[in-house]
Amino acid sequence: MSKINLKEKLSLFSEHWSPKVISELNDYQIKLVKIKGDFVWHNHSETDELFLVIEGEMKIEFKDKTVELNKGEMYVVPKGVEHRPYAENECEIMLIEPKDVVNTGEKENDLTASNDVWI
Amino acid sequence: MSKINLKEKLSLFSEHWSPKVISELNDYQIKLVKIKGDFVWHNHSETDELFLVIEGEMKIEFKDKTVELNKGEMYVVPKGVEHRPYAENECEIMLIEPKDVVNTGEKENDLTASNDVWI
Repeated sequence: MSKINLKEKLSLFSEHWSPKVISELNDYQIKLVKIKGDFVWHNHSETDELFLVIEGEMKIEFKDKTVELNKGEMYVVPKGVEHRPYAENECEIMLIEPKDVVNTGEKENDLTASNDVWI
Repeated sequence: MSKINLKEKLSLFSEHWSPKVISELNDYQIKLVKIKGDFVWHNHSETDELFLVIEGEMKIEFKDKTVELNKGEMYVVPKGVEHRPYAENECEIMLIEPKDVVNTGEKENDLTASNDVWI
């Protein structure tokens, strides 16, 4: 494999809420995603999910609190916990989770993205 | 849990080659480490290992090539592959690997660090 430059990979796409796989680590995938606006409430019943902000700022709303993440900040959403990511302005994020995780959890809807698109 | 600010966590320690756990993702751990100088040749027979440079630059020497990683660049060392990280000047790195991975692989030596120190 070759080294991966995050900014270079981020320059290759512009759509929102559509995670791109950049690498694998055993049975996990490292993904980049650009977000803007509101996502849907969902949870991942089988896995934790790591968010790391590369550029910009985002919020993750939970039923009992809201976490604000700025550049260089990360958060691990525990499995089974309902959450809703959103960003007022475009925000660039790294996600780490096992292969085959669907971005909207168990609810398929307009925001459900293919979960194995490499860039 | 609370959000994790990488720079804040990195400000809490100064020693080299001594990974600190900052979070867990299922049975994986997210670690920060500061490196300077040469590490030892080693491999991890059971797992891939992710390196992401937060600040500075480092190299990973393999038997057949050397990969140079700058800030914002990452590399996944495949399991079983002999490698030797080094950095001319201090470099700050995020590591992701399963719990219980020993930093020097199967060879214990002076650089073998405790593998479950949280910060």
